[in-house]
Amino acid sequence: MQDKPLILVTNDDGITAPGLRALIKIMNQIGEVVVVAPNSPQSGKGHAITVDNVLTCTPITIDNGPQLEYTCSGTPADCVKMAVNEILNKKPDLCVSGINHGANSSINVIYSGTMGAAIEAGIQGIPAIGFSLLDFKWHANFEPSEEYVKKISLNVLQNGIPGEFILNVNIPNLKTEEIKGVKICKQANGRWKEDFDKRKSPFGKEYYWLSGEFVLDDKGQDTDIYALENGYISVVPVQFDMTAYHMIQKLNSWGL
Amino acid sequence: MQDKPLILVTNDDGITAPGLRALIKIMNQIGEVVVVAPNSPQSGKGHAITVDNVLTCTPITIDNGPQLEYTCSGTPADCVKMAVNEILNKKPDLCVSGINHGANSSINVIYSGTMGAAIEAGIQGIPAIGFSLLDFKWHANFEPSEEYVKKISLNVLQNGIPGEFILNVNIPNLKTEEIKGVKICKQANGRWKEDFDKRKSPFGKEYYWLSGEFVLDDKGQDTDIYALENGYISVVPVQFDMTAYHMIQKLNSWGL
Repeated sequence: MQDKPLILVTNDDGITAPGLRALIKIMNQIGEVVVVAPNSPQSGKGHAITVDNVLTCTPITIDNGPQLEYTCSGTPADCVKMAVNEILNKKPDLCVSGINHGANSSINVIYSGTMGAAIEAGIQGIPAIGFSLLDFKWHANFEPSEEYVKKISLNVLQNGIPGEFILNVNIPNLKTEEIKGVKICKQANGRWKEDFDKRKSPFGKEYYWLSGEFVLDDKGQDTDIYALENGYISVVPVQFDMTAYHMIQKLNSWGL
Repeated sequence: MQDKPLILVTNDDGITAPGLRALIKIMNQIGEVVVVAPNSPQSGKGHAITVDNVLTCTPITIDNGPQLEYTCSGTPADCVKMAVNEILNKKPDLCVSGINHGANSSINVIYSGTMGAAIEAGIQGIPAIGFSLLDFKWHANFEPSEEYVKKISLNVLQNGIPGEFILNVNIPNLKTEEIKGVKICKQANGRWKEDFDKRKSPFGKEYYWLSGEFVLDDKGQDTDIYALENGYISVVPVQFDMTAYHMIQKLNSWGL
């Protein structure tokens, strides 16, 4: 059994989420699985880590299977740090995060807890993939994703990931026969335009809900959003060196 | 007074932090200042946003001055979204975040709430700068930073920021006469190696503190950490398109 790859599974929707359960089922087919996932929903947590509070992390059994599972009080990035440095006795061969209930295409990579976990694994030198299905529903249908999630994961295990990047995989909410295949893409240039929903509490105090609409500034056919809208699974290589190298020369001309 | 640039000021250490107070003082010299800052410490919050709870945002007066101030219950990125879409009636000419109590060099750009706010402003199309002083102390000495914070901010207002990036400025903890100048840099290739501090609660339950040491994998002389260690202020252009463009061709050869 020692030949099996060690696979760390996490997410941001929490340890009971059906998307995580679907991902565990797929990973059990290809490796030895350890789950370290948040004990509560962590959507929108981006790459947050817990520096101002304590963390708990305890073994748990959610459903039957060969996997080991741990539930953690922190963010998705905390879960990966906890797994790599406290729970696992060797570095995993692969970290998969998701399957997220809802898209993480375009700029959403930066807000996503699912991607925060995958990026943290990448920083730790672990080949990593974030998977998201374009369906927010709790009981979304993850079955059409299975074949592709397995294929992409096996490819990463076989090829490794050369250099400092990870994969952001988004899956359209289509039937198996409707999915046209996989496209390697850039993240679309888009952003959220907020329209805060202002309300009053029973005590007269104003409060807000973050709300808004997505604005796509990118008409390109090489983007993740274009691929998804046309029935393809999008795969974006994501880097975590955020230096804008092309601007270094320009800034040198400022004479700071 | 309408010729004055509109400057949005925020941070992650909270609205009462001396680093924010120092930044407000400097910005009052060059523009019309509106402060929208978190009502509690938000270190390590990265680019987290609040999607699972409500937000409050109320006017407040912390100290005297021409600035308008608002205290917000959310993360630093929430504060910027709130400012741009709810509080300000026009897009600010500049957003500055900080001055952070402690470094945000190298990979820390991704964990930093200070930088999360600045990056959010960048996404919204606002020229933005995150400032950090390499001193964690609450009563750190921000005076030697003043001249440089002002100069860099004026440069950004004058030159604009062409394209989709912002600036990450780190300032060594030195006396004014010891600071050698400013270097444009790449972010150093480094990461945190965690060593969780495991404890027991009075009730016998195990818990952890996130702890660890920084591992620098980068011996280059073109990095922010090299500049800071040699007495320079580091300026790193930071992008928020996270696509690893150089890997797209390689991934196409995988036959996914």
